[in-house]
Amino acid sequence: MEYRVLILGSNSALPAYGRHPSAQYLRFGGHNFLLDCGEGTQIQMQRFRAKGRKLSHVFITHLHGDHFFGIFGLLQSFNLLNRTEALSIFGPPGIKDLIYRILQLSGNPLQYPCEINEIEAKERTLLYDAENTSVYAFPLKHRVPCNGFIFAEKRPSVSLCKDKLEEYGVHPHLRESLRRGEDYRNEEGEVIPAELFYKKMADPRVYAYCSDTMPFPELITYLEGVTTLYHEATFLNTEKARAEETGHSTAKQAAEAALNSSAKKLIIGHFSSRYRDFGPLVKEAKETFSSTYAAVEGRWMDLV
Amino acid sequence: MEYRVLILGSNSALPAYGRHPSAQYLRFGGHNFLLDCGEGTQIQMQRFRAKGRKLSHVFITHLHGDHFFGIFGLLQSFNLLNRTEALSIFGPPGIKDLIYRILQLSGNPLQYPCEINEIEAKERTLLYDAENTSVYAFPLKHRVPCNGFIFAEKRPSVSLCKDKLEEYGVHPHLRESLRRGEDYRNEEGEVIPAELFYKKMADPRVYAYCSDTMPFPELITYLEGVTTLYHEATFLNTEKARAEETGHSTAKQAAEAALNSSAKKLIIGHFSSRYRDFGPLVKEAKETFSSTYAAVEGRWMDLV
Repeated sequence: MEYRVLILGSNSALPAYGRHPSAQYLRFGGHNFLLDCGEGTQIQMQRFRAKGRKLSHVFITHLHGDHFFGIFGLLQSFNLLNRTEALSIFGPPGIKDLIYRILQLSGNPLQYPCEINEIEAKERTLLYDAENTSVYAFPLKHRVPCNGFIFAEKRPSVSLCKDKLEEYGVHPHLRESLRRGEDYRNEEGEVIPAELFYKKMADPRVYAYCSDTMPFPELITYLEGVTTLYHEATFLNTEKARAEETGHSTAKQAAEAALNSSAKKLIIGHFSSRYRDFGPLVKEAKETFSSTYAAVEGRWMDLV
Repeated sequence: MEYRVLILGSNSALPAYGRHPSAQYLRFGGHNFLLDCGEGTQIQMQRFRAKGRKLSHVFITHLHGDHFFGIFGLLQSFNLLNRTEALSIFGPPGIKDLIYRILQLSGNPLQYPCEINEIEAKERTLLYDAENTSVYAFPLKHRVPCNGFIFAEKRPSVSLCKDKLEEYGVHPHLRESLRRGEDYRNEEGEVIPAELFYKKMADPRVYAYCSDTMPFPELITYLEGVTTLYHEATFLNTEKARAEETGHSTAKQAAEAALNSSAKKLIIGHFSSRYRDFGPLVKEAKETFSSTYAAVEGRWMDLV
């Protein structure tokens, strides 16, 4: 099962130096999701061979143009490609009317099943629940209503160690009771604690996408269980005042969010066009959180 | 004075092979105009160093997404760049409300003077009249209302040949009457026809932009005086039925429009994504009109 994200856009509002506005193509437990859809997303998808047809869900964080101006072209191209697969869109209030209006005006009403869901999360809210993946929205703090998204791997809470079962000669029909936490009693009447049979599991993967936000105390609770965090880092900390004024974060603040959460890996992006080189932003974040990586367009990044 | 056009997008609706939807940056007699604005236009402008700040007018032919989905991002970026220069937009009915609605919803109402003019030309109609350039709209024939645009160089109708004036010893104060067509009478009373002093002038440059159209009889009258013609050539002539069905032209039909007009040069574009290589489209057009050139993205093309 693949757990990785393709960076399609890494820049903030004003495209610069060949960098594009926000978009990520997420492969998560067999699902294909699009996170934000700035202008040119469909062209970036083509360029980096991300399959549009396989997308099942698009998640738009907020209605600043650099996060959604590409949705109209993408949806129109799906028409032209004779898409038949259903598509679900989650985005802020207002997006539904806008999409319908533009596509109608441009003579391209959608010809495939497309459900547009408007959300403005006030707390961590379940949006989509599949067999092996759950998707949640949660509030970010920006100049306009803005949702963050969490993609969480579901794993069986308990998995039994085959070697231990064989060592103790546990009959297969007793395995279920072990999983329920009932201890094992062997033929000699000896009680073996259930935990002894439990396999040590890696934490389930949880990817959080914080597109545009300034720091705020509740963020840490929303990020509970996160293993890979994408967090915007528009500015260097020398521009902290400007970051606050515009509802954004500095690289240091992004790293602090990672440090205060359970994240093992931090990806930063949404770089201001004032930075031709994003090296200094990564360097600044690494001083606080060493496992920091830059969102580089065209790069598939593993989610730990 | 520069007369050339930078191709920003050369593909039809579905972006393909790195080709983008329609847009051209036109330098014409000291003016900077944008013709159509498909998704990604602002990014293409950056890539090919076409200055947004210098744009005074944007002309949108029709409301199919591949001709206008880039306008929102472009206008928003002008905000972010603190533009103060005025901008005029000409486009089909409906565009004004749409632009205002989207920019308001995305929290970016325009902060510079921007006049949006809705037009649906029924005949050749003057839109803009500057000292050395006139811009006209005229109707094309497509699935939705669609304007073509003409950019015409203004030249003094008569220019006098310096050598001839010296040869005949014409006093400077008589030059104006010569320009008016009054014959010259020399000291011996001999009458010299005014035409003898007239310089042979090249035709004024006239660039016509026919974005999306099927052939129709009136086109030739709208193109009167054109010297360089851009005409869409979505399909090869083997797909003539498909072209007609979708309101488009074949390369052969584009060449026929050039041949029947006064054009000296034809540029074809809006290539269907079914053609990875547009060579065969150019070859087909050249069989009818030899001075045919492909719209190649990133290329500045001289207007004759």
